[in-house]
Amino acid sequence: MTYRGDPIYLEDLLFVPEYSLIEQSLHARKGATTTNGDGFGVGWYAGRERPGLFREVLPAWNDGNLRELSHQIMSPLFFAHVRASTGTETMRANCHPFAVENWMFMHNGQIGGYEKIRRAIDNALSDTLYTHRPGTTDSEAIFLHLLSNGLDVDPCGAMEATIRSIEDMARQADVEEPFRMTAAISDGKRLYAARYSTDPEPPSLYYRQDEIGTLIASEPFGTVTDGWRPVKANTFLHCSEDGNIRVQPLMI
Amino acid sequence: MTYRGDPIYLEDLLFVPEYSLIEQSLHARKGATTTNGDGFGVGWYAGRERPGLFREVLPAWNDGNLRELSHQIMSPLFFAHVRASTGTETMRANCHPFAVENWMFMHNGQIGGYEKIRRAIDNALSDTLYTHRPGTTDSEAIFLHLLSNGLDVDPCGAMEATIRSIEDMARQADVEEPFRMTAAISDGKRLYAARYSTDPEPPSLYYRQDEIGTLIASEPFGTVTDGWRPVKANTFLHCSEDGNIRVQPLMI
Amino acid sequence: MTYRGDPIYLEDLLFVPEYSLIEQSLHARKGATTTNGDGFGVGWYAGRERPGLFREVLPAWNDGNLRELSHQIMSPLFFAHVRASTGTETMRANCHPFAVENWMFMHNGQIGGYEKIRRAIDNALSDTLYTHRPGTTDSEAIFLHLLSNGLDVDPCGAMEATIRSIEDMARQADVEEPFRMTAAISDGKRLYAARYSTDPEPPSLYYRQDEIGTLIASEPFGTVTDGWRPVKANTFLHCSEDGNIRVQPLMI
Amino acid sequence: MTYRGDPIYLEDLLFVPEYSLIEQSLHARKGATTTNGDGFGVGWYAGRERPGLFREVLPAWNDGNLRELSHQIMSPLFFAHVRASTGTETMRANCHPFAVENWMFMHNGQIGGYEKIRRAIDNALSDTLYTHRPGTTDSEAIFLHLLSNGLDVDPCGAMEATIRSIEDMARQADVEEPFRMTAAISDGKRLYAARYSTDPEPPSLYYRQDEIGTLIASEPFGTVTDGWRPVKANTFLHCSEDGNIRVQPLMI
Repeated sequence: MTYRGDPIYLEDLLFVPEYSLIEQSLHARKGATTTNGDGFGVGWYAGRERPGLFREVLPAWNDGNLRELSHQIMSPLFFAHVRASTGTETMRANCHPFAVENWMFMHNGQIGGYEKIRRAIDNALSDTLYTHRPGTTDSEAIFLHLLSNGLDVDPCGAMEATIRSIEDMARQADVEEPFRMTAAISDGKRLYAARYSTDPEPPSLYYRQDEIGTLIASEPFGTVTDGWRPVKANTFLHCSEDGNIRVQPLMI
Repeated sequence: MTYRGDPIYLEDLLFVPEYSLIEQSLHARKGATTTNGDGFGVGWYAGRERPGLFREVLPAWNDGNLRELSHQIMSPLFFAHVRASTGTETMRANCHPFAVENWMFMHNGQIGGYEKIRRAIDNALSDTLYTHRPGTTDSEAIFLHLLSNGLDVDPCGAMEATIRSIEDMARQADVEEPFRMTAAISDGKRLYAARYSTDPEPPSLYYRQDEIGTLIASEPFGTVTDGWRPVKANTFLHCSEDGNIRVQPLMI
Repeated sequence: MTYRGDPIYLEDLLFVPEYSLIEQSLHARKGATTTNGDGFGVGWYAGRERPGLFREVLPAWNDGNLRELSHQIMSPLFFAHVRASTGTETMRANCHPFAVENWMFMHNGQIGGYEKIRRAIDNALSDTLYTHRPGTTDSEAIFLHLLSNGLDVDPCGAMEATIRSIEDMARQADVEEPFRMTAAISDGKRLYAARYSTDPEPPSLYYRQDEIGTLIASEPFGTVTDGWRPVKANTFLHCSEDGNIRVQPLMI
Repeated sequence: MTYRGDPIYLEDLLFVPEYSLIEQSLHARKGATTTNGDGFGVGWYAGRERPGLFREVLPAWNDGNLRELSHQIMSPLFFAHVRASTGTETMRANCHPFAVENWMFMHNGQIGGYEKIRRAIDNALSDTLYTHRPGTTDSEAIFLHLLSNGLDVDPCGAMEATIRSIEDMARQADVEEPFRMTAAISDGKRLYAARYSTDPEPPSLYYRQDEIGTLIASEPFGTVTDGWRPVKANTFLHCSEDGNIRVQPLMI
């Protein structure tokens, strides 16, 4: 879930709305798994160049620190993520969002056949990104590839180049599983999102705008249920500093 | 879930069976809540006078240490518990099972209106039990009352006395919510279980016996689904050292 | 360690100074124990009525979330605490600071013979404070007694009454160990500190003022080592909203 | 610390001896850092092919589960490790010991300039070892190289090959810092240890034998302080199934 708009308290996003992310972490309706209890993370921009991150291996619904911080932290730009691991042990370094300098990233979905192409994906990274990679997830690998592929110059182009190179590696390794993903990205000012899949079944992604701001989320939430619009499959969404949304197709 | 019988590895109880406790922790079918991700605990007897305990605040399905220990620990008598907190923060000292000397206890359900009678319940404890109480749950309070009420001499009588005194305190405090409970208790040799409620809706409890041993659980599990029998409401179950089961009514 | 003054980032207190609290948690010079690795906590006021709390069972020197939050959180009033447990297991609910409504409290030292008088201390609390007490430490008990004894009307008087009643209970239980304490208290505007012991050896406490603000700490720290003044034994320190300090004797 | 001999309870190694590992974790005398509070791990063989592991990010002196398990777990072959991180966040996957199939490994020291040669070290691994590597430490990398270099056929030769290849990579990357290490290795029957450094300052390593068994440790401990003998620099120690010790030089 991502928010960009007037500064608000994080709790107004996480705990107050009906069918909030916290509630979703217990019972997601549209996700592949019905419980997202394998760690969580929040990120926000608050006057510092790099975003703040708070990530924990406990379920989001059960962390007293998250409740405390959500009551105190105010920001115009929030990311929040709940994780359902697919087997590996939960550790903070594998919890979303991820941050490098002023960039923040989070991700749903997975690189099909990641185990077969993990080394190829890692080796395509620069020395610096390789060495300072704290975690071990495919999600973080996608983020680092975006940074290598010019995220700061052309975000949509960086996403296209990243998808192409990962699908190339998968083809060369005879991977049959699809690469499925939704992603949210920010530099602290602009907000981007992508929805893509090799096959016709990308994870769900919705957005909603009102006079307060823009919400992007895997599933609609809140009391006002209308106004949520699906992000089309295989598109890239730009949200400018003044909240204008533009959606363009991903040319893979 | 409780096991008493031939020595087995804990993983054969926790991870191998179909619809195991681990799977139940993600999606319980009969419980009041559908996710039990707020900590877990296992207890076992293995040649020491007091039982071993391993309790953790992470979800059971996601703890690498539990998986490791379950592969190594062999015992003829296991307790295992997954917790769904009803609001308070999860901490190890509040995770089941609880142990005092050779006794082990775990519990499902709750003392209705606990907040109103917590002080009365605490004050009925002996100085020693009061001072050395590590946690803050109603479950632990029930255990300590059982110990005060002669658990080592007459387990069923101790349970009856405990229920009566807690219901007395509730009446005096004008509590309207029922006291609902299932419990498992052991001294390392014998195994006891209780199912009770002030109203007609005690939590579910089942048992099953075969040539290997006896299982008691909130919900049936495993490949062989027949043979599970419900423990009747308001009864106390004795399982002797040689596996004989006797069920007697709780006289409240 | 407590700060009151111009708004600063928490990291400027915790990580930047020479011989900072983080470094002290590894190697304290004046404390009873030389490592304070059993959990930590920070508290701050930032535009909300009640203070923010972030408490964790890990050593402070080793928590990535603390580092992240310290870079982002700005406040004119910080509390920070590192804990060396004296035997009990570490849990968040036992980490300082503690907060009730707009009040925040933290503590060094201990109630001598706490185990003997724990029930008496608990029973002197109001029903509401008793029932909603999340932790089990003597420190939290002192805080709740201060609140019961009129902290919002006369902080020094509340401290005197609390010390007197605890020492009374200790005398009645033939406790010989002294009640030793330093404490920091705030309502979000004013700052208070106390240093006391039944015997002539209260824990150390220092304060320092410059044009930026006021620091109170168990041990002097920072590059500028002069200017630190000891708080006299058995006194109560008031720091007003405009930074004026007044020290008065505790009349026990 | 490593033990091989008559089956004993882990607590007799960890908690009972004077100046035990637990005490050492608070105040090491010979280590580079004086507090080892950044996680711990224990490993043991108990009738299963692969060893049991219990690893945690808390300080060893403060973990209730470790105390419980140490009272219950009996084995003829224990590894125990306390960690002082040099900057990276603590996570279980980075805590020693490490295990692959029946092999167990733990390590003190570090690969000088690891950041410069991390990719080269990783790329020298087989696909399988690369893909299934759960952690990110240089220690785990050494273990995986030993496995690639024939640990099961010639343990000392595998160690020599591993040291040579790592020092080669370091030379090629103009690393000036030395590769310093002590290590303990077991297949469940035999026990091996190594002490090595590129420069003349390898970490300390001692062993001691009596009628009960063999101890190998970074620092002598226990009531009986005599009998501890230093393992010579740049040697490899074999301890056979019947406890015979043979030390041979590492030919680098």
